Amino acid sequence: MGNDINRQVRLAARPTGTPGPEVWEHTSEAVPEPGEGRLVVRVSHVSLDPAMRGWMNEGKSYAPPVEIGAVMRALGLGEVVASNTPDFAVGDTVTGVLGVQEYVETGPQGLQKVQPTAEVPPERYLALLGMTGMTAYFGLFDVGALAEGETVVVSGAAGAVGSVVGQLAKIRGARVIGIAGGPEKCSWIVDELGFDAAIDYRTEKVSQRLKELAPDGVDVYFDNVGGEILDAVLARLAMHARVVICGAISQYNAEAGMAGPKNYMNLLVYRARMEGFLVGDYVSRWGEAGAELAGWLAEGRIHSREDVVDGTVDDFPDVLLRLFRGENTGKLVLRLQQA
Amino acid sequence: MGNDINRQVRLAARPTGTPGPEVWEHTSEAVPEPGEGRLVVRVSHVSLDPAMRGWMNEGKSYAPPVEIGAVMRALGLGEVVASNTPDFAVGDTVTGVLGVQEYVETGPQGLQKVQPTAEVPPERYLALLGMTGMTAYFGLFDVGALAEGETVVVSGAAGAVGSVVGQLAKIRGARVIGIAGGPEKCSWIVDELGFDAAIDYRTEKVSQRLKELAPDGVDVYFDNVGGEILDAVLARLAMHARVVICGAISQYNAEAGMAGPKNYMNLLVYRARMEGFLVGDYVSRWGEAGAELAGWLAEGRIHSREDVVDGTVDDFPDVLLRLFRGENTGKLVLRLQQA
Repeated sequence: MGNDINRQVRLAARPTGTPGPEVWEHTSEAVPEPGEGRLVVRVSHVSLDPAMRGWMNEGKSYAPPVEIGAVMRALGLGEVVASNTPDFAVGDTVTGVLGVQEYVETGPQGLQKVQPTAEVPPERYLALLGMTGMTAYFGLFDVGALAEGETVVVSGAAGAVGSVVGQLAKIRGARVIGIAGGPEKCSWIVDELGFDAAIDYRTEKVSQRLKELAPDGVDVYFDNVGGEILDAVLARLAMHARVVICGAISQYNAEAGMAGPKNYMNLLVYRARMEGFLVGDYVSRWGEAGAELAGWLAEGRIHSREDVVDGTVDDFPDVLLRLFRGENTGKLVLRLQQA
Repeated sequence: MGNDINRQVRLAARPTGTPGPEVWEHTSEAVPEPGEGRLVVRVSHVSLDPAMRGWMNEGKSYAPPVEIGAVMRALGLGEVVASNTPDFAVGDTVTGVLGVQEYVETGPQGLQKVQPTAEVPPERYLALLGMTGMTAYFGLFDVGALAEGETVVVSGAAGAVGSVVGQLAKIRGARVIGIAGGPEKCSWIVDELGFDAAIDYRTEKVSQRLKELAPDGVDVYFDNVGGEILDAVLARLAMHARVVICGAISQYNAEAGMAGPKNYMNLLVYRARMEGFLVGDYVSRWGEAGAELAGWLAEGRIHSREDVVDGTVDDFPDVLLRLFRGENTGKLVLRLQQA
C-alpha cells in the first residue's frame, strides 16, 4: 500500500460564480499509513452535493470553509484497507466525510459502517440510506411538521433530496407537487415516484401552475433552489404554511450574490414560517429514521435512484457542475475507477 | 346632527411609491343617521399605522385593499353620538376601524368600549392599550417565544410597536438592543425606556455595531423595517433564533418593489425561523394581554408615548408621510379638531 499513489483534488482558489478548473489543484501523494487509533479507507464513491459550493466560500457558515490547499471536503463511501482501531476492521465498508481523494487516513469518529448487498448497492448509502434520505426525512417531518391531507410542494424535485421528500410526503398521506426542469424529470417524479403533479419550471409559469394545482394554497414548501421559484411559492402559501429551507442551488453561483425572497412578507399575510435546518442536528435520531427508510425501501413504497458517473477523482470538477446545470436525476455519485 | 357635515378622506388612486396628494380625494357628506341595530361615532383620534400603506395597494393580502373611491381605512377612537343598538350608549368612547372621517355609521361588531381618565388619555387606547400594544405583546411573547436572559433586537425601536417591544423584553428579563434613526430617538429608548443599547442606523454601521453589542448573536429579532437592517440582523443571529416579521416600513414605498432578505440562508446556518403574524389572530386573548399591559403601565414599569398631531381629516395625507420619513417618536395619532 505504501507504494500506491493517492490522487487528490484540492481547492486552489475561492471561486467567483461557477467553479471552473482554475479553482482546483490535482495532486498525488503516497497512500498514508494509519496513525495510532486511526484507519485508512480506500474511497470508492464520492457524493456530489450542492452544499459543496457553500463550503468553497470564505466566511462563517454552519461548517468552516475548506481551506485553500486542502483536499476538497466530500461525503463518500469506501473500504477500510488498514486499521489501528478496534472500531473498524479491514474489509469494512464505511461512509463519512472522506474527501475528494482515493485514500483517506482518518480517526473513527463520524464514520458509519454499512453493508451493501445485491439489492442495496453501495451508492444507496450516499442517497436514500444516507445523509440525503435523512435530510428529506427530518426536513419534511420535523421542520415541515407535515400532516396527512396537506399539500406539499418541493423544488429540485428530481434531485437527490427532492425525490425522497415527495415520496415521503405521499407515504404520510399528503398531496405532492414537484417542481423540476425538463419533461423527463417531470415524468419520472409523477409516473415512477407517484407525485400527484409536476411543474416544469423551464417551460411553465410556476406561479400560474401553482394556482391551478394548489387552489387552496401550499401547506409545506420544501425549498432546494431559492430564487424565483421560492418567490412563486411564497405567493401561494396556505394559512400557517411552513417553508423549509434546505438549499438554494439556483443562487450558489450567482456572481451578484444571493437574491433574497421578495415575497417574504407573505409570511405575514399567511401567518407562515420559514425555517432552516441542518441534518447534523438530528444525529441522535438517524438510527430511527434510517430503519424507517430502509423498511419503506424493502416494501417497495419508496424508490432510490442514483445517478452514478464512473471516473476518477480528476473528473470531480466536471461532475460537480452537472448539479448546477440540473443534469442529474436522483443522487449524483462519482464512482472511482482506481488505477 | 343631520345638519352637520362629515368630512372624509377617500382613496382616489393607487399610489406608486410614496403616496402624494394625487392619491387622495377630500369629500364631504351629511352626517349619517344610524341604521337599525347600528350606531354613529364622532371620530376624535385617527391612528396612523405603517400597515395603511399596504391597504392602499391592489392585490390579495391579509385584508382586502381599500377600494378606489372608498373612505381610507383607519383605526381610531371616538364618541358614540347616536345609537340604535343596546351594545353602545350615546357618550360611550369606543375604538375600532372608524376610517379617516369625522363621523362613521357602523355596526357594533369590532368596536371596543374604553374609558379614558385623567391618567390615561384617549390616544393611549390607540397605542400601548390598543392594537399597538397587542402587536408587541403577541409578536414578542408568542411568535418570538422570548425567554429570560435572551438577546432581543428590535428595529423601528422608537416607533409605536418597537418602543413597546423593547420594554416588554426588559420586563421579561432579556437584553434589548434597539435600532432607530437619529440621536434623539436613540437616547429616548435607552434613557427613558430602559433599553440596554441603541444603534443609530443613520450614522452607524448596523452589522458592525451588532457584532459589538451582541457578540453571542441575536435570539429574537422583531422586525418592523425590512431591507438592509433585516439583512444585517440575519447575519448576526444566534442558534435557533426567531425572526418575527411585523412590518417592513423601509420597503413599502419602494418603486422597484420589495427587496427580499439576501441573507435568508442564514436561517439554515443558525437553524433559525422567520415567522409572520397578525394581531387579529389573537383576538380571543386581547383581554388577558390588555390587563397585563395596563397593570405594567399603572406600576410604571412600561411607558407609552403618543406623538399627537392636532389637525383635521384634511391633514391626514401629510401626517401619514411622517411615518415613512421616520419623524414620529412613539405612536403617531391625528387628533381631530372638529368644526
